[in-house]
Amino acid sequence: MTIWFGGDYNPEQWPRDVWDEDIALMLRAGVTVVTVAVFSWAWLEPEEGRFEFEWLDDVLDRLHAGGIGVDLATATASPPPWVAHRYPDTLPVLSNGTVLSGGSRQQYSPHSATFRRLAESLVRAVVDRYSDHPAVVAWHVSNEYGCHLSHCYSDEGAAAFRIWLERRYGSIEALNAAWGTTFWSQRYGSFDEVYPPRDSPTFINPTQLIDFDRFSSDALLELFLMEKAVIRERSELPVTTNFIGAFKAVDYWRWAREVDVVSDDSYPDPADPDSPVLAAMSRDLMRSLRGGQPWILMEQATNAVNWRPRNARKTPGVNRALSLQALARGADGIMYFQWRQSTSGAEKFHSAMLPHGGADTRIFREVEQLGAELGALAWIEGDTVRAQVAILFDWDSWWAIEQRATPTQLAYPDLVRDWYRGFWDLGITVDFVRPGDDLGAYALVVAASTFVLDDEARAHLAAAAGSSRLLVTFQTAILDRDLHITAGGYLGELQQTLGVVVEEFAPLAPADPHGLGQGEAPGTAIDGELGSFGATLWQEIVRVVDAEVVMSFAVGDAAGEPAVTRKGDAWYVATQPDRAGIRAILNAVLADSGVERLLDEPVDGVEAVRRGDATFVINHRGEERTASVAGAALALAPREVRVLR
Amino acid sequence: MTIWFGGDYNPEQWPRDVWDEDIALMLRAGVTVVTVAVFSWAWLEPEEGRFEFEWLDDVLDRLHAGGIGVDLATATASPPPWVAHRYPDTLPVLSNGTVLSGGSRQQYSPHSATFRRLAESLVRAVVDRYSDHPAVVAWHVSNEYGCHLSHCYSDEGAAAFRIWLERRYGSIEALNAAWGTTFWSQRYGSFDEVYPPRDSPTFINPTQLIDFDRFSSDALLELFLMEKAVIRERSELPVTTNFIGAFKAVDYWRWAREVDVVSDDSYPDPADPDSPVLAAMSRDLMRSLRGGQPWILMEQATNAVNWRPRNARKTPGVNRALSLQALARGADGIMYFQWRQSTSGAEKFHSAMLPHGGADTRIFREVEQLGAELGALAWIEGDTVRAQVAILFDWDSWWAIEQRATPTQLAYPDLVRDWYRGFWDLGITVDFVRPGDDLGAYALVVAASTFVLDDEARAHLAAAAGSSRLLVTFQTAILDRDLHITAGGYLGELQQTLGVVVEEFAPLAPADPHGLGQGEAPGTAIDGELGSFGATLWQEIVRVVDAEVVMSFAVGDAAGEPAVTRKGDAWYVATQPDRAGIRAILNAVLADSGVERLLDEPVDGVEAVRRGDATFVINHRGEERTASVAGAALALAPREVRVLR
Amino acid sequence: MTIWFGGDYNPEQWPRDVWDEDIALMLRAGVTVVTVAVFSWAWLEPEEGRFEFEWLDDVLDRLHAGGIGVDLATATASPPPWVAHRYPDTLPVLSNGTVLSGGSRQQYSPHSATFRRLAESLVRAVVDRYSDHPAVVAWHVSNEYGCHLSHCYSDEGAAAFRIWLERRYGSIEALNAAWGTTFWSQRYGSFDEVYPPRDSPTFINPTQLIDFDRFSSDALLELFLMEKAVIRERSELPVTTNFIGAFKAVDYWRWAREVDVVSDDSYPDPADPDSPVLAAMSRDLMRSLRGGQPWILMEQATNAVNWRPRNARKTPGVNRALSLQALARGADGIMYFQWRQSTSGAEKFHSAMLPHGGADTRIFREVEQLGAELGALAWIEGDTVRAQVAILFDWDSWWAIEQRATPTQLAYPDLVRDWYRGFWDLGITVDFVRPGDDLGAYALVVAASTFVLDDEARAHLAAAAGSSRLLVTFQTAILDRDLHITAGGYLGELQQTLGVVVEEFAPLAPADPHGLGQGEAPGTAIDGELGSFGATLWQEIVRVVDAEVVMSFAVGDAAGEPAVTRKGDAWYVATQPDRAGIRAILNAVLADSGVERLLDEPVDGVEAVRRGDATFVINHRGEERTASVAGAALALAPREVRVLR
Repeated sequence: MTIWFGGDYNPEQWPRDVWDEDIALMLRAGVTVVTVAVFSWAWLEPEEGRFEFEWLDDVLDRLHAGGIGVDLATATASPPPWVAHRYPDTLPVLSNGTVLSGGSRQQYSPHSATFRRLAESLVRAVVDRYSDHPAVVAWHVSNEYGCHLSHCYSDEGAAAFRIWLERRYGSIEALNAAWGTTFWSQRYGSFDEVYPPRDSPTFINPTQLIDFDRFSSDALLELFLMEKAVIRERSELPVTTNFIGAFKAVDYWRWAREVDVVSDDSYPDPADPDSPVLAAMSRDLMRSLRGGQPWILMEQATNAVNWRPRNARKTPGVNRALSLQALARGADGIMYFQWRQSTSGAEKFHSAMLPHGGADTRIFREVEQLGAELGALAWIEGDTVRAQVAILFDWDSWWAIEQRATPTQLAYPDLVRDWYRGFWDLGITVDFVRPGDDLGAYALVVAASTFVLDDEARAHLAAAAGSSRLLVTFQTAILDRDLHITAGGYLGELQQTLGVVVEEFAPLAPADPHGLGQGEAPGTAIDGELGSFGATLWQEIVRVVDAEVVMSFAVGDAAGEPAVTRKGDAWYVATQPDRAGIRAILNAVLADSGVERLLDEPVDGVEAVRRGDATFVINHRGEERTASVAGAALALAPREVRVLR
Repeated sequence: MTIWFGGDYNPEQWPRDVWDEDIALMLRAGVTVVTVAVFSWAWLEPEEGRFEFEWLDDVLDRLHAGGIGVDLATATASPPPWVAHRYPDTLPVLSNGTVLSGGSRQQYSPHSATFRRLAESLVRAVVDRYSDHPAVVAWHVSNEYGCHLSHCYSDEGAAAFRIWLERRYGSIEALNAAWGTTFWSQRYGSFDEVYPPRDSPTFINPTQLIDFDRFSSDALLELFLMEKAVIRERSELPVTTNFIGAFKAVDYWRWAREVDVVSDDSYPDPADPDSPVLAAMSRDLMRSLRGGQPWILMEQATNAVNWRPRNARKTPGVNRALSLQALARGADGIMYFQWRQSTSGAEKFHSAMLPHGGADTRIFREVEQLGAELGALAWIEGDTVRAQVAILFDWDSWWAIEQRATPTQLAYPDLVRDWYRGFWDLGITVDFVRPGDDLGAYALVVAASTFVLDDEARAHLAAAAGSSRLLVTFQTAILDRDLHITAGGYLGELQQTLGVVVEEFAPLAPADPHGLGQGEAPGTAIDGELGSFGATLWQEIVRVVDAEVVMSFAVGDAAGEPAVTRKGDAWYVATQPDRAGIRAILNAVLADSGVERLLDEPVDGVEAVRRGDATFVINHRGEERTASVAGAALALAPREVRVLR
Repeated sequence: MTIWFGGDYNPEQWPRDVWDEDIALMLRAGVTVVTVAVFSWAWLEPEEGRFEFEWLDDVLDRLHAGGIGVDLATATASPPPWVAHRYPDTLPVLSNGTVLSGGSRQQYSPHSATFRRLAESLVRAVVDRYSDHPAVVAWHVSNEYGCHLSHCYSDEGAAAFRIWLERRYGSIEALNAAWGTTFWSQRYGSFDEVYPPRDSPTFINPTQLIDFDRFSSDALLELFLMEKAVIRERSELPVTTNFIGAFKAVDYWRWAREVDVVSDDSYPDPADPDSPVLAAMSRDLMRSLRGGQPWILMEQATNAVNWRPRNARKTPGVNRALSLQALARGADGIMYFQWRQSTSGAEKFHSAMLPHGGADTRIFREVEQLGAELGALAWIEGDTVRAQVAILFDWDSWWAIEQRATPTQLAYPDLVRDWYRGFWDLGITVDFVRPGDDLGAYALVVAASTFVLDDEARAHLAAAAGSSRLLVTFQTAILDRDLHITAGGYLGELQQTLGVVVEEFAPLAPADPHGLGQGEAPGTAIDGELGSFGATLWQEIVRVVDAEVVMSFAVGDAAGEPAVTRKGDAWYVATQPDRAGIRAILNAVLADSGVERLLDEPVDGVEAVRRGDATFVINHRGEERTASVAGAALALAPREVRVLR
């Protein structure tokens, strides 16, 4: 199999004479695979039970004739207008009781039995029709689950939530214990008394909230599994559904074991100078979800998107640099939304492989060049990426740390990103791991504000400290899986591993401009044997038991308190240092570790990563850069990508 | 007829002995006309079908005895409490399903058959009673249509929307084609499946949205036409309804042909130094709506209003300057809300002709002076204002460019205002025109971000370029009336007129502080033969076919790309230059055009405009200014208005 | 009786073996009283009508055995899940129609008859059981009335509102007159037509709004009185309910006469350097509510709370300084929420007397020290605080001045706080008084933006000016109790007292960043015989009749207009001067007044107040300070509190 190169193909938007031009231009661009029928429900089943497949037969036949494979969608992502009109019970409900309407897409409640019945009927019809079509190379279930609507608070959802809770807890007494309903008079007499966390006068029970997060993610997963089961009745082709990066509402660790291949939609903001780092982090997460298995970049944009307040374009070379970055970080497919830019509808200003201006445009020329280049890089397909460093990534921690009624408002992915970027700067590849995973293979394990850790995960981490280096940052292991304070105190047994006790929190998070009238929220500073650095967001008041104080707070009411400690190879960081501070700490943590770094010195905007035996060095900036790689100076033109073998 | 001078008179707020003082003070102030009964429904029909006219008889008789004309309202603007209590189906519904309640005003759905029935009954009673009353000089239908509630999403509204759509499209297939429902599985099987654009999980179909905007404007217009028809059964007096400037929700081009005289409510913010420009723009729009016919300034404030977060006062002279500005720009009436300042209710802090402090106040003294002055200026009544420059103003473009899911968030009136201000600075009078209007009479036509242009309008504009100079700015003719991308590419046939092709958008709009985490959105700069200037909001990547590049982008990722081009007298501007840049461009565009400018040089805060044979020169600033008019230096005291004949 | 020292004790969160440790540690810390069962409804009545008291018997017996008194809660603050599940009519409704759900706390409508029935049944059961228990020393009714939900817009609430209105007004004609329904066609035909101020197209009738504020405060008070009546059937022990400082939704003047002792919950933000002033103001208000009677600080935090966006900790000494401040300002009890920090639920990150880290922590050590110290200070119990200065504090003014459709958006407590701080800086103790109170005992009376004053209150104030000095600031007596403009003009008869007429408002309040596009809102400056100072928020254009102009506006469009005037000992201030300006004005107003000041010079962060014969001097800052007290220099360590007798 070659590398997938192509995009979403929605031919129902154009008359059939355009389809001829589409195939011709696809071949010119080196397209190998397209995703078809993602939003075609209304065209496949214009009224309930009446299916129209002729047009799709034609599309698939044409593509097959052109030698282009088809990632065939189950078309359930966006129900046609007749669904909501005939079955209002399919519509989702917000936490304030608002019933959403159609007119956009994804206007269904995951908990609606009617929706599930209609979706199942459609999938069965599609699979019956096309499971043997020679063009089809994979199945694409639904689309971006949870993207616009992940939590539905309907009565039908309430009933499903109760069943999920009963399955989880067995008895109402167990739920009461887990939720801590002793407080605020929340003790339930039966599961019937439990509701989704609809709008309430003040802070809702934290465990109720996270259980509703888990339930909502699982409810979407059940939809996926229903469709997959229908497919498996007739087809053994790979099944995927497109993820959307580090997405809060869906716990991809639970999902990844159910897909045959991970695929991802990736839309970093070109206006954000940090977007190459964010993109790399997302790619490493996708690769990690199934233990390093190659994955598909299922959607990206050739140029601007249309859904930000300001949609910056991708200047020349950006699309190529980010595409090869994905390849280098384990992707075996580089795909786009969408093939031909819409001329009407909500996404007409979303760029495409073939823009409004047609083939005689910068964008299409870049697409052609990339297609050719990927053809030449096909030897990399299937090669793996090896990492010596692991960073924990945990949806429970994400959901919990971003709740209200916590010490301050923190953004979990940003906390992780700052440390990820430290490695990126040094050309060190990182895997993401799940708390509780076997960590033995890694030279260094990082738990960055992993707020929630259960007994087993804490034990794993403590054990890993025997063989790996360990770096733990503030607000780790504060809560167990029920969001109770960790038994034995914050950090639990990691107190012994790290040699510290966390006694108080002193958050520094910037003042919410819309918040209550609070005083200024300054940053802080740390100094010590690694130098002097700024820090933000947080201070913890740490009592050192048997660790060494490496850095201390330098200013403010925590001045003199420990900020960075180590006990052997186990490090604790009680604040969020700035970029230079993180780099200094990582240099210290990694000293003599044997962890390979592909860049001798960090260079702004320059990334290096190895896949198989090829090292990719990428200059993401619009200016020239010189990187030092294995002692040799490497001059890089703007946006240049060098592949060294 | 003399110039109207007066205001809303709501005597039901006071006992009758106050009415005597009112008439006496009106006469002292030179009041000629008052608007009566705008909010009197509850006093005219305290319960359904029982009318009480005696008090209004008395008011009208007293005014007539004083020689004061009456602009008599139909009193339908604010239904009494019994309407909503007895008929909850009259209440408006928001897009999220919230049913609004009474307690304020305008709590009716334009789509409610019950409301229309009740309103019609009231209007008939009022007209029957007063059509022959000698005080009445005009009819004032309702009040500020759409001001607080323009879009109602009720089920009754949904039914009306379906009828409107069926009338527009004829068949559901035509609607599907216009709305581009091929995308996102939005194909409708019948009109029954269509709903108003209620809250939905993500971006709603753009054509559905703009059709709902059009429908909502039309539904209000139908209310007006219903009332007008009732009036016409008995009276041939002029009928008006008070507009509210450049107001997004109502397409005044469609309305203006239905009123006998345009009237406007105008409340520029005295704290905004740009308010004289904004006021002038609004006055020119009002004059343009009926082809230059004199109009009535129906409402303004003598001093502060009460509905802004901060309600600045009008310092001495401001009220006079803005009033004479209106006169100079075509108004034949200078009216206020309201005659006597309320002592209770929601508008008690809104200033009036007679303030809380009574007649011995600065405000009343200024009113008296202005009344006397307008009496002396009566010779101007009926004179016309002549413009050599036309700027397109288009509600479809407004509605479309401010939708979400566009390249960036732009504010249509601000885009037009920047260019309008360029002419204001130079003392050049401008007409506003509607796309598709005959443009032959103008020396220069400006299409400033006229986002939506249909085939006919583009053809008109291309044709105008044969006889007039043409200035087109970015984001013009991107979409057709169905909000599809213009056939043949952005600009359509204007590509030939202008000699350019627009290939990519690179918006620079300032970051929305509440938006997603995006990078900084800097301005840009342009330079070239006209000099060097700043620019903001936008960059287009333009391919020049056969035009001359006058200015180029000077910095950023578009550096070197064309920013201003000309092909003969057809100019294209791919960004929003700063005030000096716009002035330089206009100077170049107007060179040797014969367009008269009343100011030799722009002077901060100084405006000049000619009506008939009188030239008004106004200093809007609180400091002295010297203007050069026709080569002569003119010294202007603070807030001074000079009338030169 | 000794000083109360203790906190909320919620033992149902832990197994009974923890209770043993609780009692032991309470005794070690010197705890004298705890509040029990505030959130225990679900544990006392797990299903309707079935009560479980055994556990609470045990708790009370243990506490009594330890010699610890119990402030026993009626447990009605948070209904159990079965209440909402079985009786959805108990749930509150927002102004937009959203019905709130459970999951947090206080999910009841004050207007629900079902809720009142269930609450009454519970209180009766609790009082029957424990009215004779020897541990009980007081009754604690419900909790923080109105905290999360003060205004309920349900249909049942609408019916209650109509009854309240009928009681207030007697006839619908009287309501129409009071509400000014002559405007905007709001005339009501009957009380049936009146609704709560639910969401409406624009500004709701101001008197309707304030009547709904008054009604909502009264409806909560009725709940309290119902519970108190049940208690009084069986017990003569003191009854209280915990207030929450200067809280907008509840008019504590009306409440205070119904409680036997005032108690307060106080959570100043440790990150706010002004928090000692705000705390002092709240304490003086609490003392003033019942004419100087000692009060209970019922809740505070030892360290951080959990409900702000950023929850700063209390650094060493802060808790002690604020506790002794409360004692000095009249408190006879220093209590906390809560005894032992929760390990689950919505408040687990709210600090407690016994933190997560247990007894070997800075926090518990500080608790122990404070307990010992309060034991030694028991001699102060019952002593009174004497003030020579009175500041008006008025809920009607608060509700009215913060309405929309006013000249600008002002925050009433901030307006008062600025003047309060002027006295705090000088070590001058202040009482708060209610408009209409007898003011004869005070040397100086301050009306700071007392927006609403009825005839009687204005007369009182004018009369006070005969014997006391009087300081009135802008926006005082603008409205009467019906929110009509004061008869006779702004200020009413105070025009004569002050020798000025207020003719216009020129607000300077900072631009609302989310408001309409308005110009900049700069501050202003004043100068004159007291010096030159900055000022903000407001300018009034004042006509001086027979006063002396002390200070004038120095800049802007009001330059030269009077800013501070005096007529004998009656002063008027037409703006909000900065801190130095206020101090200068107070120095002038107080000259030769004999008002005692405890600090010779203001010192940043240093407070002085006298209770009985003890003068407390408190340094609230983390740095050393030197204060001059009665001519003697007093060196104060960081956070030091000195008690001088």
